[in-house]
Amino acid sequence: MSSLIIHGGVGTISNKKELLEKIHVILKEGSEMLSSGASAVDVVEYCVIRLEDDEFFNAGKGSVLNEGGSVELDAAIMSGDFLMAGATAGVRGIKNPISLARTIMEKSEHVFLVGAGAEDFAGSHGLKKMPDSYFVTSKRVEQWEAAKSAGVTTLDHAEKGDSEKKYGTVGAVALDDKGKLAAATSTGGIVNKKFGRVGDSPIIGAGVYADNNTCAVSATGIGEHILRTVLAKDIADRVRFEGMTAQEAAQKGIDYLVEQVDGKAGVIVIDKNGKCGVSFSTPDMVYGGVCNGITMET
Amino acid sequence: MSSLIIHGGVGTISNKKELLEKIHVILKEGSEMLSSGASAVDVVEYCVIRLEDDEFFNAGKGSVLNEGGSVELDAAIMSGDFLMAGATAGVRGIKNPISLARTIMEKSEHVFLVGAGAEDFAGSHGLKKMPDSYFVTSKRVEQWEAAKSAGVTTLDHAEKGDSEKKYGTVGAVALDDKGKLAAATSTGGIVNKKFGRVGDSPIIGAGVYADNNTCAVSATGIGEHILRTVLAKDIADRVRFEGMTAQEAAQKGIDYLVEQVDGKAGVIVIDKNGKCGVSFSTPDMVYGGVCNGITMET
Repeated sequence: MSSLIIHGGVGTISNKKELLEKIHVILKEGSEMLSSGASAVDVVEYCVIRLEDDEFFNAGKGSVLNEGGSVELDAAIMSGDFLMAGATAGVRGIKNPISLARTIMEKSEHVFLVGAGAEDFAGSHGLKKMPDSYFVTSKRVEQWEAAKSAGVTTLDHAEKGDSEKKYGTVGAVALDDKGKLAAATSTGGIVNKKFGRVGDSPIIGAGVYADNNTCAVSATGIGEHILRTVLAKDIADRVRFEGMTAQEAAQKGIDYLVEQVDGKAGVIVIDKNGKCGVSFSTPDMVYGGVCNGITMET
Repeated sequence: MSSLIIHGGVGTISNKKELLEKIHVILKEGSEMLSSGASAVDVVEYCVIRLEDDEFFNAGKGSVLNEGGSVELDAAIMSGDFLMAGATAGVRGIKNPISLARTIMEKSEHVFLVGAGAEDFAGSHGLKKMPDSYFVTSKRVEQWEAAKSAGVTTLDHAEKGDSEKKYGTVGAVALDDKGKLAAATSTGGIVNKKFGRVGDSPIIGAGVYADNNTCAVSATGIGEHILRTVLAKDIADRVRFEGMTAQEAAQKGIDYLVEQVDGKAGVIVIDKNGKCGVSFSTPDMVYGGVCNGITMET
């Protein structure tokens, strides 16, 4: 048996039907890979690549624009085997940041590479590059112009007049038939961001965590809230120390986030038994899952 | 009652006596501040500023040099009040990165700012800048030249021919007389580092964590090991979920690090009752502490 959950962000989501259709197509592909014996880490990378390549999600192509009108990308991946992890932040021109994160995990002696140095590493390992024009969509330019003229820097993926509509990040968690867990998260961050702001997505223990002995977690939402509560590790430690299932730990983790920092976020969790958990403190979350053969209702 | 522990790194330490003398001078100053009613966050910032300003420690002035022969600094601070946190990585020319981290915590809406953006933020908030020449010492130039000619990128603070002598980072944890905890960590990273590598020091939950309900933690050692185990949060969760004291949690956290990733690191921990914990998997650690009025033996 195996399990897979993928998500496309949290918030108030106007085009949910359309996003869910996309999620379910990718979910089906990923589930078939798992059924054919693919590893959890291959499947979460694959699903996140598909979400990065789809301009409707805030990761890879179609990401939100920073203060300078550019796309800067963050991603992280973790394998439950030996707590191996790779992460990158503030990179430009890399088609699939999640593959860069995986290459860092497997080919470097480091865990976290940022900025121009990470881009150099990507170049020396043959990661696919794309020109700026590939990433920037007209919808994002409109959104960025609206944010700039309003002087707003923290809204994400929002439409005009709505300052907290959707926190776009994508992610995937999986358990494969060998009992291995993996998690992956990727994002373009927040609209009109400045000051080299890094959120939770590339931070091991915050936006992503996986340990074969407990669970795999991918988080999305207001990055600062997730960073301060170290949310993914918090959830994994509830499984470890309190013996919770994925759903119990997801719910308790989100309760803790709300109680401690009045936080807005959502999480997807798969535990070592393939059980699934989803919880969020925002109005809605776009996700889909297949858990030990059973498709989750969304 | 109040408690304070400060550290100056782990490894095999040849000049321990000299470093301990410096640690004890700063420890005395910090303890007097706490006795006079200073807040934990003020005291950990003060102690780390003193360590950054001393060129014998790998933080601020006298930091190790990166691949380009420059000093790039990382730091983070966390207040146990409401899990407030600030962090910065890859900044140049900022005299006291720990003060930048605190300014990010208090004056920005973000938690983590990196690189040129963080330097811009520092400039707009009046943080003191210094020219490159201030940070670079002749000892570090010699060390860097040796590392470059040996093609080594991961050794830190080591002397010639010794690839893992000392992992330099500085840190402080404190409990003040109002029951508030704080933690701070600062580093120049690893000798001859490249690719925009970020270690554990500026990562909330890895190199630093503080929660008034559990404990304050500062970690040092091989950053990748600390990142993969999310060590500071791991220790805090042992206090929270297993009811451990600072010493029990420090020891179990280091045991976990060794067992999971064969990790090399050290931690200083103060719990909400002012009890102290120190543990390390390296040959030695430079630290000093005053715990509920009693000076720790080192």
